[in-house]
Formats: sequence, structure tokens, C-alpha cells
Amino acid sequence: MISLEQFKTARSVLQGVIRSTNLIHSPAFSKNSGNQVYLKPENMQVTGAYKIRGAYYKISTLTQEQRQRGLVTASAGNHAQGVAYAAQAAGVPAVIVMPTTTPLVKVNNTKDYGAEVILHGEVFDDAAAMAAQLAEERGLTYVHPFNDLDIAVGQGTMAYEIFQDLPDVDIILVPIGGGGLCAGVSTLAKLLNPHVKVIGVEPEGAASMTASLEAGHVVTLPSANTIADGTAVKTPGDLVFPYVRDNTDSVLTIPDDELVEAFLDLMERHKMVAENSGLLSVAALKYLDCRDKNVVCILSGGNMDVITMSSLVQHGLIGRGRIFTFSVMLPDRPGELRRVADILARHNGNIIKLEHNQFVNINRQSGVELKVTLEAFGHDHKREILSAMQEEGYEVKTVSTPEFYT
Amino acid sequence: MISLEQFKTARSVLQGVIRSTNLIHSPAFSKNSGNQVYLKPENMQVTGAYKIRGAYYKISTLTQEQRQRGLVTASAGNHAQGVAYAAQAAGVPAVIVMPTTTPLVKVNNTKDYGAEVILHGEVFDDAAAMAAQLAEERGLTYVHPFNDLDIAVGQGTMAYEIFQDLPDVDIILVPIGGGGLCAGVSTLAKLLNPHVKVIGVEPEGAASMTASLEAGHVVTLPSANTIADGTAVKTPGDLVFPYVRDNTDSVLTIPDDELVEAFLDLMERHKMVAENSGLLSVAALKYLDCRDKNVVCILSGGNMDVITMSSLVQHGLIGRGRIFTFSVMLPDRPGELRRVADILARHNGNIIKLEHNQFVNINRQSGVELKVTLEAFGHDHKREILSAMQEEGYEVKTVSTPEFYT
Repeated sequence: MISLEQFKTARSVLQGVIRSTNLIHSPAFSKNSGNQVYLKPENMQVTGAYKIRGAYYKISTLTQEQRQRGLVTASAGNHAQGVAYAAQAAGVPAVIVMPTTTPLVKVNNTKDYGAEVILHGEVFDDAAAMAAQLAEERGLTYVHPFNDLDIAVGQGTMAYEIFQDLPDVDIILVPIGGGGLCAGVSTLAKLLNPHVKVIGVEPEGAASMTASLEAGHVVTLPSANTIADGTAVKTPGDLVFPYVRDNTDSVLTIPDDELVEAFLDLMERHKMVAENSGLLSVAALKYLDCRDKNVVCILSGGNMDVITMSSLVQHGLIGRGRIFTFSVMLPDRPGELRRVADILARHNGNIIKLEHNQFVNINRQSGVELKVTLEAFGHDHKREILSAMQEEGYEVKTVSTPEFYT
Repeated sequence: MISLEQFKTARSVLQGVIRSTNLIHSPAFSKNSGNQVYLKPENMQVTGAYKIRGAYYKISTLTQEQRQRGLVTASAGNHAQGVAYAAQAAGVPAVIVMPTTTPLVKVNNTKDYGAEVILHGEVFDDAAAMAAQLAEERGLTYVHPFNDLDIAVGQGTMAYEIFQDLPDVDIILVPIGGGGLCAGVSTLAKLLNPHVKVIGVEPEGAASMTASLEAGHVVTLPSANTIADGTAVKTPGDLVFPYVRDNTDSVLTIPDDELVEAFLDLMERHKMVAENSGLLSVAALKYLDCRDKNVVCILSGGNMDVITMSSLVQHGLIGRGRIFTFSVMLPDRPGELRRVADILARHNGNIIKLEHNQFVNINRQSGVELKVTLEAFGHDHKREILSAMQEEGYEVKTVSTPEFYT
């Protein structure tokens, strides 16, 4: 049973180790949601995620002998860096097992924090088995990413900071992967004020906590499929499950495409990058059925590969009508391209890519396919350009996936 | 002559209006530069830039009659939003003249802050002329983006906050466009501690302050050509020039491509977006010839269009060897593609784009050009893949601009 005393201890243990991530008020999100929205920017925490809280507190609970032997864990993500950093800060050795497919950048970051990195196995499960074996053989303490009450207590400490910055908080939105963060935050929040609502948020493609809550016990999903890789968990932790069940008021599920929108909104409005799992709480805002409440969105992490970022930005551009592709059939004769170019120029369509293919049709009256990818100011401008083409007699087909990235 | 009293007044006027942007310590930048590096995140200021400071303080110096008539200015950037927001906060009407080519997003943002927006002229100079005319006709107060001592005083207030967060600051790096920000920050910094070094930073393609300092008076560059659009100023302000000359220790100039690197570094390390002008101070770190100093980089703004962001991310990927294109000539016979595909697969090269062109050469022994765009883990991985191709006897040419965006 987690007690308030444990949270108090964890808070003082973490002082000076973690960065203070003060709440940021969001005028834009407040206006859109009809509530007063605040962001808890754990994406700006040391190592770019909240994970260091649990890992560092966990170390503080170990005996001298356990500390000397050190830690082991398996992870290709935030947990790896959190454990490595916390171990270094506490002067404890750490072994991190990562799948061989882990991007080099993450491997190097983890090594930079002083951990011994072992690359093993193609998928996470292989790496985890290796970590368990090392724990056994070398007497290392295995640090689970979420299914550990000490870890949950460490993560939960951020509720103190939320109450300190915003004593009259009404609702806290918490991303859920395995349930460690949510167990910690919801338990401490209810201890501090039983009237606070804590709402969990899961990706639609990996809603294992929702399924488990419905079943009344932990269940395993057949698969997890979401761009929110940090919360793509098939089986929630059974140790933390009762805390989530008892202290969380409800759980929302979010489809992936809304994370793309949230990513761009956060960048444009608050100049911050959050990873997809960290954006769940922002995307959840529009599912709230309340007004004039003080709502806190926990941005749990910000570690995103630049390639992923590039792809999100591009999908966001498409979603906002800033980039689009249309195709049109032209008669196969000189001068036709000039007519189209003239329309585009008059309506300020900025050409990104052009494909002009002859012989797609035997009928010379519509023998050429022209595919145009344009940059526009948004959906209104996009419609204006397409209408102008139609008014000049062209049959225009928009292509759902613009030929932009490829 | 700007006095300490004015800065004090400005500080109290701004209290409760601006957001407190506390210094962020950067372990990563500190390690790279050999100094202790701190970021002053004015990209996270209200409206996404420091501009609100000067505009709001300026309003406070106006008479009741001037306030009732209101403000006018011309801008397509941060200044427009800063003036609009400040005017709304002070309950004063504002007219902002923007060039007709201003992206709709910026126009809408400025309108959202309650300003009257007039679209006029194709370039900034036309809009500025219109604003001057309106000031005359309607008796409005013209708010210059930089060449105004009250504006400089408002911007300079951030030096108080820097000293408060880091009393033993040694060096402050300040972006320079027209010189308003630098005049304010350097003047207050020297008043607070004459031993602090203030170093200005300009884009290489628009180094008008450097040219003016060398000449001993304000000079006009024939052109300004830089991706740092917020600091692309051909003529520094003559009113603020003496303050920059007297209180700034030196000025560095930064080539554009280093801003791309700084953009990605800031995103990856600090999960923050800064616009190119705001990144000048970060890019300047590697030009410092000192060690173990406390250095503050002013991130002056974060307003960047998503299209620009997308292009920066992509250039950054190329710069880091994460994306590259090579071409190779193949014999014109079946089975050749399989050989190449096999090499790429063995070395984990992830194909983004492939172009296979027959008939580029009359000699069938090298009659086909294959152009491959790959995703890799970085420069080491890129070299590994290219070497593997060469070891198998292929003559490989890397293409300097990967065929990625187009």
C-alpha cells in the first residue's frame, strides 16, 4: 500500500536532482476547450521525460549492497535514459539492454549518461529476457519501467508540483502506457485532494488499461498499434493496476491522427516539442465535457527522433491544407501547361512538384496526366485554387496522399 | 540618454503582463562549449517573442490623448503580434499594416489580438509608408520595431531577469537585427555590472551592425540575404546605434547553415522551437574563445512557419547523414537491382526513394542509372553503406542535394 509518507520522502530525495518544470498557462488551448488549460512540461525534464523521477527514487530505496552491485533494465526509450541518468547521479552502476535495432542516437545518449549498454535481440522481449538473466547472474536490481510501486511513487511526485503551482486544480490528464505514471499521480492527487479528477489517456491502438478496467483485472491485448510508441503497452502492470482502478476517474482513448494535430498545435502555440505519448493529454482536451475548470495536461516526454518529427510535420501540413496534390487530364497538345500555370500563378499557388505524363490515355483530348503538388495558405486557399481550375473547365481530382515526401 | 530609472519603471510596468521566462541550464551545450550555458527562452514569451516588452512599455509612456488615438505600425513578423497584444492588454487601439504577401496565419494571429489589420503593398517598405501616412492622417503613434529608445528600454528589461536567475553571469549573447534589443540589454547589463561582457550576434548575410560599427556610423547594406528573417535588416537604427557601440563588447556573424544545426540541437536537447534569428545566440557558442564562463544565450523568438520548419528539419537530416542520395551506373541486364538491394538490406539502409533510368548511356555495361535516397543512422552508417557498395565493385556518386523534398 502506497502511503503519503513515501511520496514525501520521494519528493525530498528528488530535490536538486530533477529540474523544476513549472506549469505553463495556455491561452490558446484554454480558448479552444472552454477551460483554463495548463501544461506540465515534463518534456523539458532532465533526459526529456519524467522517467528519472521513478528511477532515482527507486535507487534511494536500495540497500548499500544492492547499490554497489548496480541496476539493470531493458528499454529502447525514455526509461533507458532515465535509469542511466539517475544511476549516474546517484553514483550507482547501470546496465541497459537495448534491442539491436535501437537507433544509434538513443544508444549514444544512454552511453553518454555513463551506463553500460548491451545490444541484444531484435525486439524488446529478447532484450528484457537478457536483462532478467543479468539481474539473476550478476545480482543486479532489475528496474521495471512501470510495474513497481517505488517507481510509481517517484513518478507521482509531480502531483505535488502541480498543486503547488495551481492549488485549485480540478482535472489532471495523465498519459497511460503501463500505468506507473498514472498510478503515482492519481494516488497522490487523491491523497492531497479527493475532489480532484484524474483522467487517464491512452492511444486507441493500445488501450490495454481501458480493456483491463472493463474486465476488472489486467488483460493482455493481442497487439499494440499506435504512433505513440512510449505508451504502446499490451499488458498493464498488475502491481500498479489497483491504484489506477481506485484513483482514476475515467480513461479516454485517442486516435493517432489527433496526435499529429496536437503536435503542431504545441509547436506553434508553445514552441515546444512533445513526443506522441506526451501529446495524449493535449489531444484529450476536446473530449472533456466540462467548462471553466482548471485542467492540467501532463506532457510526459519530448524525445522524438528527427525523422519521425519530419514525418509528423509533413502530415500536419497536409492536414492543414498547406500542402496538397491534385491531378488533372489535359489535351495532348502544345500550350496546355501554360493555361494551368497561369491559373496557379493568378491564385498564388506555390508549386512544389510537377509530374507531366504523356500516353496515360489513348484519347488525345485527355491524353496527358498532370499531377501538381502545391503549397497553399490553408484549406480556404486550397479550395480557391481547385475551384479556379474547375471554373476553367478542368476536371480536377485531389490525391489523398500528396506526393510530397516521396 | 537612457537611465537606470527608466529600466526600473519599465520592469514594474511589465510585471504581470509578460510571462516569466526563467533561465534554462543546458548540460549539452555546456559540455560542447566548455562553458556553463544557460538559455533565456523568450521564444516562450507571450506572442512567442520579446517584442511585447518594448511595445507595452512604449504605451505606458504615452499621454492619455495619444493612447485614445492609438498606435500604428508596419510589420509582417513578431513586432506586429507584440504591438497588437500589448495594445489589447493596455486597452489601446492598434492598426497594423502588413504587406499583402503576409501568410494568412500571421494576419489571423494579429487580428486575434484585437488589432485592425490593413493589407497594403507587396513589400515591407510599402506597408511602412502606409503606416507613416496613417500616423500623420489619424494622429496615431508610430511604434518603430527597433529605432526608439523607449522600445529599447522595454526590451532591455530581460537583463534584470538574467541577473536575478544567474547573478554571476559573465557573457550575454544577444541577436542583432536593427539593434533595439541589443541596445536595451547591453545598456542595462553594463549599468548592473560593468564587468559583464555583452556580445551581439548577426546573420552573415545581413551584418549591418558589424558594418556600421566598423564605419563608426550607421551604414546601409546593399542587400540582406539570410534565412534569419527576423534580423534581416539593411540599416540599423541610428538612435539605438550609440548604445550598441558603447555597451557591446563585440559582434559575431553567423552563416545560415549553422542555424540549421542549432535548430535541431535545440529541438533535440531542449524540446524547444526557436526561429532562425532566435538561434543566432546558440550558433554563436562555438565562436567563443573562453572556457568555464557563465554564458547566457537569448532565444529571442520562436515564431516559425510550419513549412519553414519542415524544410529546416529536412536540411538538418541531410546535414547529419540521416538522409542521403547516391547514384550508381548498372549494367543493363536482369538481376542487377537485386544485387544492390541485397547490399542495402545487409547494411540496414532504409530506402526512401528509388529512380531507375534506362538509356542514360549507350554502353550497355553501364547503361542504367540507379538513384537511391536512403535513411541512415548518421554519417558513420552512411559511410558504411557507401563503402559496401564500392567493395562490391560499384562506382558510387553521392548527390549533394538529396532528392527528398522534391
